[in-house]
Amino acid sequence: MTKATASPLLRPSLPLALTMGEPAGIGGELTLKAWLERRHSNTTPFFAIDDIRRLEVLAAQLGLAVPVKEIAGPEEAAGCFAEALPVLSQKLSDVVISGQVNPANGKAVLGSIERAVELVRAGRAAAVVTNPINKAALYDIGFKHPGHTEYLADLAGISTPSVMMLACAQLRVVPVTIHLSLAQAIKNINQELLTHTIRTTHRALQDDFGIAAPRLAVSGLNPHAGENGSMGREEIELIIPTLELIRKEGLDLIGPLPADTMFHASARKRYDVAICMYHDQALIPIKTLDFDGGVNITLGLPFIRTSPDHGTAFDIAGKGIANPASLLAALDMAAEMAKKTAGKSRHAPKAP
Amino acid sequence: MTKATASPLLRPSLPLALTMGEPAGIGGELTLKAWLERRHSNTTPFFAIDDIRRLEVLAAQLGLAVPVKEIAGPEEAAGCFAEALPVLSQKLSDVVISGQVNPANGKAVLGSIERAVELVRAGRAAAVVTNPINKAALYDIGFKHPGHTEYLADLAGISTPSVMMLACAQLRVVPVTIHLSLAQAIKNINQELLTHTIRTTHRALQDDFGIAAPRLAVSGLNPHAGENGSMGREEIELIIPTLELIRKEGLDLIGPLPADTMFHASARKRYDVAICMYHDQALIPIKTLDFDGGVNITLGLPFIRTSPDHGTAFDIAGKGIANPASLLAALDMAAEMAKKTAGKSRHAPKAP
Repeated sequence: MTKATASPLLRPSLPLALTMGEPAGIGGELTLKAWLERRHSNTTPFFAIDDIRRLEVLAAQLGLAVPVKEIAGPEEAAGCFAEALPVLSQKLSDVVISGQVNPANGKAVLGSIERAVELVRAGRAAAVVTNPINKAALYDIGFKHPGHTEYLADLAGISTPSVMMLACAQLRVVPVTIHLSLAQAIKNINQELLTHTIRTTHRALQDDFGIAAPRLAVSGLNPHAGENGSMGREEIELIIPTLELIRKEGLDLIGPLPADTMFHASARKRYDVAICMYHDQALIPIKTLDFDGGVNITLGLPFIRTSPDHGTAFDIAGKGIANPASLLAALDMAAEMAKKTAGKSRHAPKAP
Repeated sequence: MTKATASPLLRPSLPLALTMGEPAGIGGELTLKAWLERRHSNTTPFFAIDDIRRLEVLAAQLGLAVPVKEIAGPEEAAGCFAEALPVLSQKLSDVVISGQVNPANGKAVLGSIERAVELVRAGRAAAVVTNPINKAALYDIGFKHPGHTEYLADLAGISTPSVMMLACAQLRVVPVTIHLSLAQAIKNINQELLTHTIRTTHRALQDDFGIAAPRLAVSGLNPHAGENGSMGREEIELIIPTLELIRKEGLDLIGPLPADTMFHASARKRYDVAICMYHDQALIPIKTLDFDGGVNITLGLPFIRTSPDHGTAFDIAGKGIANPASLLAALDMAAEMAKKTAGKSRHAPKAP
């Protein structure tokens, strides 16, 4: 039996690190509810990197019976997880009022993220799961990144753009362009970006999802994928030649497909992921199919990172009505990916 | 009892007129299968305007037990519908080979459409239901319209653009722009087009769908509906001001809504129709939800017109494997709309 002497790299029981997120949003409530849902299950435990006192106060306010236990390191999380929510202390500087950002607390928000990355890179946590942040609040304290994901890439020393995947039980999608006006998105799609997105996705499906020969479907940009150039020429001039090039690397690609006919149940059986040209082309089908259970996964980082597929939801913060489904799905997804990658060395994708 | 002397305008039992469509496509097979499905049901009968001999040959080839009966006028359809498919004769000029267009037959394809419009306008048929046509085949014989819908509008003497709605059991959508490249669609959206589309849709929901106070949801163009201008300004500069103007007419409009979060089950409860800015924004959700049962409905014509939500499907024509679900849904929808409008005068919408 080699079990007792297995390499530390093979420990699938490493806990997941869950960040604080914006404390004035719904993140704290989700963290508490997620612990209640998972405490007795046979899933990978998690620990929060958060302010212990604020979680205790919030639990009391919301009437959630969640004992909070301070831990000194991730190694203590599994031992206490069934009895209490394990928390690595990350103290806030000021009070939290639900729905109102307080720049004085921004440093702790960033500190929680930095700590999570540190622990996962040190092999002490299996993955980073992030609660939603509010960028505006962080810009006030000098935060310079366009978003959460770019900040994580920077912390990891990655210079190539990371890639966003959204996944639910029925579908995985990857938008090539994301938070741009539709007109700008059309302009930004080029061979380099398309190639980088497809390669990064392909590698992640192999490394993080355990799919040996991933099947990728690529949408067209225009209606009917341009219908031979009669409704737009981007397919002919850009997408088709790029796919031809990448196929030579041995990747299994179909497309460009008309986007309207690629997301029904039987069409989805043909591929493991849909690469889409712009935000709504990717997000409409997944949010139509599963509005609550979608998970956001960042591909191309040297560690696993998932997050719920929603924002801070200031309008319902502190009311006790936030739905933890997406955070639970993000924790499940991170745990599953961690099992697939346990023991494999992780590395950043090649530059395009 | 006034039933026996009811006005002819109140006859919900007027039959539906079903056109031939491209004879080399799957239309004939769908017509035969639709009759088999509906012959014993308590639904509104239909008659085909088609070549009797070609339908008989096709039925024999496909092993479909469909007796065909020539009728002299729509008035004879109801009487024989349970025993045979009623057909108003529209002779083809040449042979039909499945999957191969034959321009010699184009005149009959158009003749079938013209006859259907004539009958519905004369109050002898309840609605026009069209099988798919192949435009390329018709251009060879001088057809000058961009498509089926524009041809119908021309036959009806309508000069304002008609509006396409797609409907299934869960959702109705109306794209503001349709068969254009995505870049061109963005350019073509303007206040006039948006206003005309919304007004025509509103009126059709009242007149043809029997919804007294229709609730319309309008999507944004950009991701997150532009997020206050940070991802595109079309919402601020065009869509929001246009909606403000139309709301003054008393229309119940919500939006512009982020397109990715408006199509899940609970979001759909808030509206009767979703007005979308471009083809895929409208067609992705409806085809994801119901790929086979979608119906295409032309709004803004002075008569009811529905059609299946697919093309001629040359690749499977003549093989007996065509799925009649969409044509059946188109017949059901036409019958339902005819009942709602029976007795009401129909008229073209006001010019924008």
